[in-house]
Amino acid sequence: MFSRYFPILKWAPNYNREAFSADAIAAVIVTIMLIPQSLAYALLAGLPPEIGLYASIAPLVIYTVFGTSMTLAVGPVAVTSLMTASAVGELMTQGTPEYLGAAIVLALISGIILIVMGIARLGFLANFLSHPVISGFITASAAIIAISQMKHIFGIDIHGHNLIEQITSLISGLPNANLATMAIGAAAIGFLVWSRHRLTPKLMQIGFSKQMAGSASKAAPVVAVIATTVAVWALELQSAGVAIVGDIPRGLPTPALPAFNTELWSMLFLPALMIGIVGYVETISVAQTLAAKRRERIDPDQELIAMGAANVGAAASGGFPVTGGFSRSIVNFDAGARTPAAGALTAIGIAIATLFLTPLLFLLPKATLAATIIVAVLTLIDVETIKRTWLYSKSDFAAMLGTIIGTLIFGVEIGITIGVLLSLILFLARTSRPHVAIVGRVPETEHYRNIKRHDVETFPSVLSIRIDESLYFPNARFLEDTVNETISGRPEIRDVILMCSAVNSIDASALESLHHINLRLKDAGVLLHLSEVKGPVMDRLKRSPFLTELSGQVFLSQFEADQRLQDKNTLPSI
Amino acid sequence: MFSRYFPILKWAPNYNREAFSADAIAAVIVTIMLIPQSLAYALLAGLPPEIGLYASIAPLVIYTVFGTSMTLAVGPVAVTSLMTASAVGELMTQGTPEYLGAAIVLALISGIILIVMGIARLGFLANFLSHPVISGFITASAAIIAISQMKHIFGIDIHGHNLIEQITSLISGLPNANLATMAIGAAAIGFLVWSRHRLTPKLMQIGFSKQMAGSASKAAPVVAVIATTVAVWALELQSAGVAIVGDIPRGLPTPALPAFNTELWSMLFLPALMIGIVGYVETISVAQTLAAKRRERIDPDQELIAMGAANVGAAASGGFPVTGGFSRSIVNFDAGARTPAAGALTAIGIAIATLFLTPLLFLLPKATLAATIIVAVLTLIDVETIKRTWLYSKSDFAAMLGTIIGTLIFGVEIGITIGVLLSLILFLARTSRPHVAIVGRVPETEHYRNIKRHDVETFPSVLSIRIDESLYFPNARFLEDTVNETISGRPEIRDVILMCSAVNSIDASALESLHHINLRLKDAGVLLHLSEVKGPVMDRLKRSPFLTELSGQVFLSQFEADQRLQDKNTLPSI
Repeated sequence: MFSRYFPILKWAPNYNREAFSADAIAAVIVTIMLIPQSLAYALLAGLPPEIGLYASIAPLVIYTVFGTSMTLAVGPVAVTSLMTASAVGELMTQGTPEYLGAAIVLALISGIILIVMGIARLGFLANFLSHPVISGFITASAAIIAISQMKHIFGIDIHGHNLIEQITSLISGLPNANLATMAIGAAAIGFLVWSRHRLTPKLMQIGFSKQMAGSASKAAPVVAVIATTVAVWALELQSAGVAIVGDIPRGLPTPALPAFNTELWSMLFLPALMIGIVGYVETISVAQTLAAKRRERIDPDQELIAMGAANVGAAASGGFPVTGGFSRSIVNFDAGARTPAAGALTAIGIAIATLFLTPLLFLLPKATLAATIIVAVLTLIDVETIKRTWLYSKSDFAAMLGTIIGTLIFGVEIGITIGVLLSLILFLARTSRPHVAIVGRVPETEHYRNIKRHDVETFPSVLSIRIDESLYFPNARFLEDTVNETISGRPEIRDVILMCSAVNSIDASALESLHHINLRLKDAGVLLHLSEVKGPVMDRLKRSPFLTELSGQVFLSQFEADQRLQDKNTLPSI
Repeated sequence: MFSRYFPILKWAPNYNREAFSADAIAAVIVTIMLIPQSLAYALLAGLPPEIGLYASIAPLVIYTVFGTSMTLAVGPVAVTSLMTASAVGELMTQGTPEYLGAAIVLALISGIILIVMGIARLGFLANFLSHPVISGFITASAAIIAISQMKHIFGIDIHGHNLIEQITSLISGLPNANLATMAIGAAAIGFLVWSRHRLTPKLMQIGFSKQMAGSASKAAPVVAVIATTVAVWALELQSAGVAIVGDIPRGLPTPALPAFNTELWSMLFLPALMIGIVGYVETISVAQTLAAKRRERIDPDQELIAMGAANVGAAASGGFPVTGGFSRSIVNFDAGARTPAAGALTAIGIAIATLFLTPLLFLLPKATLAATIIVAVLTLIDVETIKRTWLYSKSDFAAMLGTIIGTLIFGVEIGITIGVLLSLILFLARTSRPHVAIVGRVPETEHYRNIKRHDVETFPSVLSIRIDESLYFPNARFLEDTVNETISGRPEIRDVILMCSAVNSIDASALESLHHINLRLKDAGVLLHLSEVKGPVMDRLKRSPFLTELSGQVFLSQFEADQRLQDKNTLPSI
């Protein structure tokens, strides 16, 4: 029971030297990758660069204690950094201590919400973010992030609350672009795109193993950071107007939690909830994908607690919202991490970097960081999934398109809200007019299928109707209308069988409709029967007066119902 | 096509003397019943009494042209009068011309909304008001209405925005109650309750036919009106503080539509939508019930247009929102009305009363009108349905209780909103954790049922899982978890059959889950098969890559799947 909330108790007792050396190697590789990424995401969130480093220390240690995934790597990621910028940017001015304070509070509230959801075992709520909504949301966010970083590539300011305003502002600012900044940005983007596609094969040609080559090419941003920093130093580009990271305070943050402030907390509650859930969905997808590859199991409810604790930890160490990142977890997995201890070791690596390497980053151009963000998020734009969804289901596509357009025009939170509501409304609209089939017997079997699709046998006086939906209030009246219309003008029908194999529940409104259908058919001299009623549905019907007033019978199988009623209608009545 | 929007064109050409005399008799009876009712509901809506009469003239004539029910009687009813009072009372002071003006605008907007919904064929939206929500809403409204009328019975003022405040205010006002008013109120209530239960048998004893006795006893409120008016006159009770109706302006209203006013219209839009939908639901229930008794058909979408036009007509003649009333329609039906012409004839009757009878109503005590309202609404409190719903389904009961409590505490609009949202959330919560059964073959049949409920045959290497729900985003991950857990620790399983007889749709999120399930099972050396996939679901799957990557097969029936896979696993592989 205790170890449910502290999964470290399950693996730590068996931890050995072999596992440690695997974890340590993975930690070194992930650390190298994380340094530029942490700085870049802090920049994206509108925060000083060191905050990105702080957010990559305590959360990793905490996840080691609470996490159930052996390979997940926690830290700031692109989408939640964008959401942080958008939530805090509405309330505070970027660059002020209040802006940083609000970002820290955002991590804290988001952490508390996730912990509460985890204890209440509410992980299933994340399922209401459907696949098309997540996919549409990420695609739109990637576009927003890429555009927002253009200001660092061109060395100009961009204003505007939505994508169109920002693009207009970008274009009108282009004449003032800084050429040296553009050169660095373009070179960094070019190198990163090239290395993403070509570096692994090149490294394999010179003798790296496939896996090593893959991991090493993930370090391309580090090469870009070093090369452009050296270029700034050698050519004194900061005097040519290239924006640099500048002074990063050395040393680690002192642990402290922000004070409670009713007004600020209530304004940040909804964004914190959104960030928490979006981050959790990303975490759980990454963790489940990696766990399945090694036949490990993760516990979705415990992951809520782990991510919640990680965010509280981020807040306590002056960081901003964190989550399980896709690319860093893949690197961690590929580099051979065995246990969450790899995360704790990575945290040590980042802490050392924060203590000793920050002076070296003084001349790092912001354009390089922007380039790493742009190249990273462009891979998130998933045109393939959009196409596949269009082909598969127009209503899923509509939800996706609503999310994309909503996110681009109104921002991330409203975009997601639109997507979720649209998904639900489209589902309800569909179930309110369910598919209905008149069924007949597939010859020589006991199987019944739609008379319009299959070559089946029917009997004139017995009508079998299959309703392909649970019977509940949005379709209760539809059921009445359908039965009425199907019967009208067919006086030869003596028996109607409602085949309930697809009816997973019958609510009080639908029961009322069944009651009316039964009465009307009885008045018309037609008996109503049910077949293949599922156990849970039958249990409930038994608690109502419906079964006693039903004019016909309830049959276990459609075949039995059909045979008995055919016999009844064929034999002369005595 | 033209006659679709003007149903009068269908019946008027065959209208004859016989139908006219039947309609005329019904019209006389309904007119007598409607006079006190119209005054009473105007009082309930907080309007001058003549407005109730105005609202019972033009709408009836308009319904004769546009309505599809042969027996529906249109006019102000209790619940929409209460909703009018609550919507207008929030914006204006009762008794002012602005209050009346807002009530008229409310009828106009509500009429326009219903017409637009009718043309767009949106009648199905009314289905989202589930049976328990309507029932709970009506019960709670009846309680609110009864309490609100107590002020007229006791001759005191009642304040308060919710039921508890009103009851407190009523109790603290009791010491100031007017004894003469109370005497009239108590006598009227006593007489009306007695006549509701005993008058019909009494009349049958003295020789009335059952039907005539029933109709005649509906005129009891008229007797109460006459008796108490005479009592006030004879005993000069108005000087003893009995509130009387007073001067009612003679003559008919001049047709005029209210001017457009952005601010007022936008504030009244939501209440008008609610009143329109609630009224429409009452209309359609009454109309369908009565139509079914005579095997007539009504057109739900045309009824939207008819009710919309009736409300526009109410507004144009200075009235407030109207709808198809339950009790008056029953009286109209019982009195033998044949066509909607009975409504037009009733309108003539009310117009004559408005022109010539209003001076006689000068001394009518308001307590009598309040008594007719109280006795009418108390029959709407439906404890039996509440009990039955509790037994049948706890989640339907929860929606009903939420509606009742919401309506009592926050008022009618919020109450309904709470009920609808609660119904939807409970449905979604249930479908997100669907019922899952491992199934086996019922011996000597081709029928498959739950192994936990039936004595069925299974084969060790073939596992058949039936998911009792459409596969969509809220339960997509549940499906993955369920299959994983069912398989884990059972190495003898070689084939998994997903029996899809209850799967009415598979959305993009669930398709993604099936894709993952297929891959994971394949990695574990287990084949995934589908059986009994419905036509529309299969059509869609064919448009995705899923069927080509599926490790197993798709079988028409579960029996075929089970037999073939048993054979495969029994025979030695070649």
